[in-house]
Amino acid sequence: MDRVRVALLGCGVVGSEVARLLLAQADDLAARVGAPLELVGIAVRRPDRPRPGIDPALLTDDAEGLVARADVVVEVVGGIEPARSLMHAAFRHGAGVVTANKVLLAEHGPELFEAASAADVDLYYEAAVAGAIPLIRPLRESLAGDRVTRFLGIVNGTTNYVLDQMDTTGAGFGDAVERAQALGYAEADPTADVEGYDAASKAAILASLAFHTRVPGEAVHREGITGVSAADVAAAARMGCVVKLLAIGSREPEGPDGPAGVTVRVHPAFVPRSHPLAGVRGPFNAVFVEAEAAGELMFYGPGAGGTPTAGAVLGDVVAVARHRVHGGRGPGESAYADLPTLPLSRVLTRYHVRLEVADRPGVLARVADAFAAHGVSIEQVRQQAVGEDEAAELVVVTHVAPDTALSDTVADLAGLDVVLDVTSVMRVEGE
Amino acid sequence: MDRVRVALLGCGVVGSEVARLLLAQADDLAARVGAPLELVGIAVRRPDRPRPGIDPALLTDDAEGLVARADVVVEVVGGIEPARSLMHAAFRHGAGVVTANKVLLAEHGPELFEAASAADVDLYYEAAVAGAIPLIRPLRESLAGDRVTRFLGIVNGTTNYVLDQMDTTGAGFGDAVERAQALGYAEADPTADVEGYDAASKAAILASLAFHTRVPGEAVHREGITGVSAADVAAAARMGCVVKLLAIGSREPEGPDGPAGVTVRVHPAFVPRSHPLAGVRGPFNAVFVEAEAAGELMFYGPGAGGTPTAGAVLGDVVAVARHRVHGGRGPGESAYADLPTLPLSRVLTRYHVRLEVADRPGVLARVADAFAAHGVSIEQVRQQAVGEDEAAELVVVTHVAPDTALSDTVADLAGLDVVLDVTSVMRVEGE
Repeated sequence: MDRVRVALLGCGVVGSEVARLLLAQADDLAARVGAPLELVGIAVRRPDRPRPGIDPALLTDDAEGLVARADVVVEVVGGIEPARSLMHAAFRHGAGVVTANKVLLAEHGPELFEAASAADVDLYYEAAVAGAIPLIRPLRESLAGDRVTRFLGIVNGTTNYVLDQMDTTGAGFGDAVERAQALGYAEADPTADVEGYDAASKAAILASLAFHTRVPGEAVHREGITGVSAADVAAAARMGCVVKLLAIGSREPEGPDGPAGVTVRVHPAFVPRSHPLAGVRGPFNAVFVEAEAAGELMFYGPGAGGTPTAGAVLGDVVAVARHRVHGGRGPGESAYADLPTLPLSRVLTRYHVRLEVADRPGVLARVADAFAAHGVSIEQVRQQAVGEDEAAELVVVTHVAPDTALSDTVADLAGLDVVLDVTSVMRVEGE
Repeated sequence: MDRVRVALLGCGVVGSEVARLLLAQADDLAARVGAPLELVGIAVRRPDRPRPGIDPALLTDDAEGLVARADVVVEVVGGIEPARSLMHAAFRHGAGVVTANKVLLAEHGPELFEAASAADVDLYYEAAVAGAIPLIRPLRESLAGDRVTRFLGIVNGTTNYVLDQMDTTGAGFGDAVERAQALGYAEADPTADVEGYDAASKAAILASLAFHTRVPGEAVHREGITGVSAADVAAAARMGCVVKLLAIGSREPEGPDGPAGVTVRVHPAFVPRSHPLAGVRGPFNAVFVEAEAAGELMFYGPGAGGTPTAGAVLGDVVAVARHRVHGGRGPGESAYADLPTLPLSRVLTRYHVRLEVADRPGVLARVADAFAAHGVSIEQVRQQAVGEDEAAELVVVTHVAPDTALSDTVADLAGLDVVLDVTSVMRVEGE
């Protein structure tokens, strides 16, 4: 094979950087692959639009035709269609695929991995999770001789920037989102990030890999950060914690409450400042992995951005192109463990609950009773008068208990006449 | 292929764990490889010695004979011979090799990689650097589409434990080494660790990978931590720093001082407490990698230990065994960039110098002159009387300057009559 033909689908922030780096690092890439990479075309919706630094002769709106001429197809269009159909077309033509499309993988991963396997070609996706951080390859290959028990990650840079701003400047949620938008860290419509959809897709991909089990995106328990207030961040600080949006996957052993399986969830949590994830600032990402043999590992780096993501895409392009030149294929989907995805009730966690209560004797006993009724043990209670009216704030931190027992307790608390408001409920993780 | 025959050379701390995990995780490993892994034998010097948990029928002192019966050879004997000859024998028989032998790779890597390549088999070595931390595979594969400009790592757990003890308890070097020995973190003869030999081997391996250039172990500038005193650690703390033994590799551009190339060095340094490496405690390892596209990445985890290292070995065994079953081969040595290893004089650094000086007027001016004579700019000077005699301590922190200019300055300082002693010279890194 005297060259490897690369087709690029999409020419946005990531795609244009992939195109630039393919040229800028052509000699390096050729040496690493064993043959030159030739960019044979870039499929875009509007080929007539001028794009600085891109040879107009490469642009085409005939994505299907372009795919048919490629050995490696790089999909950085995003979304479900036409990305999904184009990937299938690539496999039919015997081309390997590199993608950064987390939504597509979280929704249609199994079907795509099966098609790649049937066609005996590669489907690589390092850039789909945590941008530039090598994470997919370590999980898929380096830890192939180990058993991952848990991962705990900050996989969305937008929300991490927002929460970090709230922590360091005392800003409210709305202000912090506006700053993120002004800096280009958040989109005009930040829903996918702040509601945790993006993190949930990534959590599904990581859990599938880590536990050798298919975990669809919709099986991920998801809570966003829109309910996180400046008061929550301040309460976390008083406990020596910081609020982070975490993606957590955990292997649960067989127990009295049910079979072995995995739980996968995305929600904001208090994280102790001594935990390595607490120090992950601004738009950075990091994933903490616990494995039986390896112990605790952490991977840290930029979670997004055109150039970092393009670098991760190119690493995959080199691997897939090498296989075209030298033969072989990377590991495909590994779903042999086939563990059930368990409800959140199987998770053991700690809660930090803030209540607005009537400021009169006996209230604490009533509240404590509600916890006791569900077998939840209280670690810490702090009460303080707020303002001049008859209300007080009560902060309760629990010991670890099943998530259901805690959520049932909170439901009961809301029904108590002495409880004026359940101001916030946050999990505490990473201890 | 209905099974993959695995031969184990060595049955020490790592080898016995590899043997145990091969059995304990047999089903998982078979599913990931696509065929069962069969441990066909363990070569040891004394097969008659009882080894708990190891089937005596597997033990043999005929390592050559064992290698001839294997598809994958796992070398965890350590040292140069017979490891090197046995690896060559494995390649001759068409077997892939997995090794954790950093010394052998740093000294004879090119010869071994060439032999593996000529035999068209794999040589994998994830466990040779930073134990369980996936580092080799990310550098070799994930960053294959990027250009690494620098790495900065804590790659020796023993010295990190010792320095961490000195930092947190105020212990002197000798006491801290004794504690490390008591806990099994340091060997009875700690020379290889505390003199930086172990870290230098690892730095050579990382630099070779990161810069696609052959860097032999002896090309690494090496300084150990035996000269680090409790006073140095205290001085670092006063500057908001912590002392770490760092392995640093850097790509230097062509400049007025010479050609493009790489510098590779191991030495203790002051690291600001705000740097992620400063928080790496006890026997843990971490490597910070800077790449053009990816930006800053960090990999963190246990740097040693039988089980973590065995886990990393098994990850490689799965990869090599997969290639035996499915065809293909991992990327071999990549040395195409062929950059020269440059002298330390090309490195720009900051120095923290402690001097014992005569306590009389004009001393500071004489000292400042010595720095100025070599074009080294001073950032900070602090002077304090020590004891009741006529001596004072002078601490000088410089701005960044070529390493040669700084070492020449220090040599001149030692010759000044007003300088009674150059108490310590430490570089400041990671800013």
